[in-house]
Amino acid sequence: MPRMAGPFVSLITDFGFETAPASCRGVIHTICPEARINDLTHAVRKFSVRDGAFLLQSAAPYLPVGVHIGVVDPGVGTARDPIVIRAERGDLLVGPDNGLLIPAAERLGGIREARAATNTALFLERVSSTFHGRDVFSPVGAHLAAGVAFEEVGPVVAPDALIRLPWPAPTAREGGIDTGVLFIDSFGNCRLAGSMDDFLAALGPLEAGRTFRVRTDAADEVVAWQPSFGHVAEGTPLLYEDADYDGPGLAVNQGSAAAAFGLALDASVRIEPA
Amino acid sequence: MPRMAGPFVSLITDFGFETAPASCRGVIHTICPEARINDLTHAVRKFSVRDGAFLLQSAAPYLPVGVHIGVVDPGVGTARDPIVIRAERGDLLVGPDNGLLIPAAERLGGIREARAATNTALFLERVSSTFHGRDVFSPVGAHLAAGVAFEEVGPVVAPDALIRLPWPAPTAREGGIDTGVLFIDSFGNCRLAGSMDDFLAALGPLEAGRTFRVRTDAADEVVAWQPSFGHVAEGTPLLYEDADYDGPGLAVNQGSAAAAFGLALDASVRIEPA
Amino acid sequence: MPRMAGPFVSLITDFGFETAPASCRGVIHTICPEARINDLTHAVRKFSVRDGAFLLQSAAPYLPVGVHIGVVDPGVGTARDPIVIRAERGDLLVGPDNGLLIPAAERLGGIREARAATNTALFLERVSSTFHGRDVFSPVGAHLAAGVAFEEVGPVVAPDALIRLPWPAPTAREGGIDTGVLFIDSFGNCRLAGSMDDFLAALGPLEAGRTFRVRTDAADEVVAWQPSFGHVAEGTPLLYEDADYDGPGLAVNQGSAAAAFGLALDASVRIEPA
Repeated sequence: MPRMAGPFVSLITDFGFETAPASCRGVIHTICPEARINDLTHAVRKFSVRDGAFLLQSAAPYLPVGVHIGVVDPGVGTARDPIVIRAERGDLLVGPDNGLLIPAAERLGGIREARAATNTALFLERVSSTFHGRDVFSPVGAHLAAGVAFEEVGPVVAPDALIRLPWPAPTAREGGIDTGVLFIDSFGNCRLAGSMDDFLAALGPLEAGRTFRVRTDAADEVVAWQPSFGHVAEGTPLLYEDADYDGPGLAVNQGSAAAAFGLALDASVRIEPA
Repeated sequence: MPRMAGPFVSLITDFGFETAPASCRGVIHTICPEARINDLTHAVRKFSVRDGAFLLQSAAPYLPVGVHIGVVDPGVGTARDPIVIRAERGDLLVGPDNGLLIPAAERLGGIREARAATNTALFLERVSSTFHGRDVFSPVGAHLAAGVAFEEVGPVVAPDALIRLPWPAPTAREGGIDTGVLFIDSFGNCRLAGSMDDFLAALGPLEAGRTFRVRTDAADEVVAWQPSFGHVAEGTPLLYEDADYDGPGLAVNQGSAAAAFGLALDASVRIEPA
Repeated sequence: MPRMAGPFVSLITDFGFETAPASCRGVIHTICPEARINDLTHAVRKFSVRDGAFLLQSAAPYLPVGVHIGVVDPGVGTARDPIVIRAERGDLLVGPDNGLLIPAAERLGGIREARAATNTALFLERVSSTFHGRDVFSPVGAHLAAGVAFEEVGPVVAPDALIRLPWPAPTAREGGIDTGVLFIDSFGNCRLAGSMDDFLAALGPLEAGRTFRVRTDAADEVVAWQPSFGHVAEGTPLLYEDADYDGPGLAVNQGSAAAAFGLALDASVRIEPA
C-alpha cells in the first residue's frame, strides 16, 4: 500500500485551554486538509518566550520532518516581521522573530536560511491586531505544508539579524559547576543549564549513588546522582539526567524540587562533589 | 495527488481532562475511521451552556465545513430531543436543544434546517442515562460525517421552536455605551457584549490612544483604546478589539481585567468618552 | 472510495501538559506516519497506576481495535520488562508490567497472550533512563501499528506472571453493600467499586427516587437513586449509574460528592436501603 500520510505540522503556543488553538488547527486544516497536526503544548507559561523556546527545542528532535509553528508572542501587533527558518534537517519553523524558534532550529542541525514572512497572500484575508497565531503564523505554516515554496514567504533575512534569547550557561569553577534553573516542569522538576557533557567535564563521572553538595539561596543539601526516580525513596531529592529535556536535572521523587530547594526560573545552583 | 483528507469533525464539551472526550473520539473513529477530529476545547466552564455557545461560535468561522458536535448539557437525561442543525455554509451542528448550537449556526450563515435526532439506529446500541456525548451526539455526528443523509436523523423542527439562550446586548446611551461581560477567558480578559460596529456607532472612532471612562460596580477608570497588548506597559488596562473572539474587549496587559475591574460574567460595564 | 484510514493508536499517560506527550506522538508519527492517534488523557494523577488502569479500562471498549499505549510508571528505570498484551478483541496493549494494562485487557475480552518487549530493535536507538514512554513504549507501539508482528516484540510471558493491582471489590452484607471509592473525577463525582449487577443483587431494584442511607467516615445521609443529574436540584446528592465509567456512582448535582461526603480514593462507603 502506498504511503498516504499527509504533511506533518506541529503547533506550540501559550494559548491555554480555550478555542484559540482549535481556531489555528481549523485554519491549518482548511488550507492543508491532509495535515497531520501534533499539538506540542498550549500550556507554555503565558508570555514566556523562553519557556516556549525551551519546550519547542526539547520536542523537536523527536518530531517527523515538517512544519513547526510556534506562537509565544507578548509583542503581538507591534512592528516586527514574522519569520520562517529552514533548519538543516529540512524542517520549516514559523513564528515571531523574538528568539522562540532559534534553539529548536539549532537542535535540528542549525539554520540553513531564514526569511521574513511578508507575503500577505499567505495570510488570512483579514489579519487581526492580536491573533497572529490564527491569522498569520498558522496560514503561512499551512501553505508551506501544502507545498508552497519557502522562497514565496518573503525576503531572506541574515541569521545574524534574528533576535536571540539569553540562554543560561554553566561555568566550571573550583571543582564544581555554577549552573542555573533553565526550566521547571509541572512536577517541580528543575532542568539545569548545561549539557551532560558540561556536567561530566566539571564534576567527573556521574555514577549512581555518587553524592554532591547542592547549594541554592534557600538550601544547602547533599544529593546523590541517580539513574532514575525509582532509585530513591519518596520525598528524596536526586540529581539525574532529565530525559524529557535531554540534560541534567534536580528533582524530588514524587515531590517538587522547586519547592524543596526554593528555586524559581534562573535561580543559581552550585553543585560540587560532597 | 488526489485529495484524500477525510471529513472534518469538531468537538466541544465541558468534559474536562479525563477520558470522556477520548471515548467520544473513539466512537467517532469507530464509525468514521477517516474523520479528521479537531477538539475545540473540553474546558468549557462546567454546565455553562452560554460559555460553550460563545466558544463554539467564536471558533466556527475558522473551521473547515464539517460536522460540529457540541455537548454542554446540564439537563442530560431529562426529556428533550437531541438536534442537528444544517447551517447555510453547509455545516451540520449536533447537540442538545438548549441553545448551545444557535450562535454558531448564525455565524455560519444562519439556520437552513433543523431536525430532531430521534433515529436511534444512529445511536450506540446501549444509550446510558448520563453520557449522551458518547452514546448519542458522537455517533450521530460520526454517521453524518461518514455520509448518512441529514434527512435520516429525524423529523424537521421549526427553527422558531428551538431553545435559545439569553445573549447580552449593548445599548447606546448619552454618548456612551452600556454593555456587559459576555465571556472571561483564562487570562482574565473580558469580551464585552456587542460588535465593533456597535462600539463605533456609540463611541465614534476607536483610535489608538483615545481614552474612555470605564465604569463597573467595583471600578471607575480611564482606559485607552489600543490596537494590541504590546502597546501598553505591563499591568496597564486597555480597550481593544479581541481577535480571538471577534469583538470589543477589556484587558490588562499581562494581568487580569476581571480582577482589576471586579468583573464576573454578565456584570455591567459602562463606557463613555473620557 | 476505498477506506484509507490508518491504524488506530491510543495513548494514556500521567505526563501532564508539557511536551512529553507530543514527543511520544512525534515518535509514533515518525515510525507509523498513517497512525490515527487518540490521546485518552495525559492528566492521570501523577504516579497513580490505579487511576491510569481505571481510566484506560473505562475508555477501552469505546475505542477502535488498535494499539493502546499506557504509561504511568513510577518505577521507570528500575528492573522490569515492558510488556505487550494481546487482548481477545484483537487489540495490543503496550506498557510497563505494573498492572496498568490488565483491567483494560479484561474489558477487551481478556488476555490472549502476553510478551515481554525485550527486542531493542523496536526501541529508539538511544534509550534514556527516565523517559521510556518516548524511547520504548511509543516506538514499540508504533512498530506494531505499522505492521511488525506481535511475535517479534519478545518472549511469551505467562498471564499469571504479570503484576496485578489491588482492585476494590464490594461486599453484600446485612441487606446493604460495603463498597469503596474506586475513582474520583474532576467534578468530584465518586465511582464506587462494583458493577451495576453487584448493586442490584445487594440492594434490589435501583428505581428512580428510591432512597438509600449512605454512610462514610464523615457523613451519614439519605440519598435517592436517580437516572441522571438533571433529576435533582443543584447541590443535591444522588446515587446513579456513572455512564462515563460504566458502574455505580455517588455525586452531587453541580457540586462535589468527594467534598460533601469527605471521600478520598479507597474510602469506605456503606449503602443500605433507607
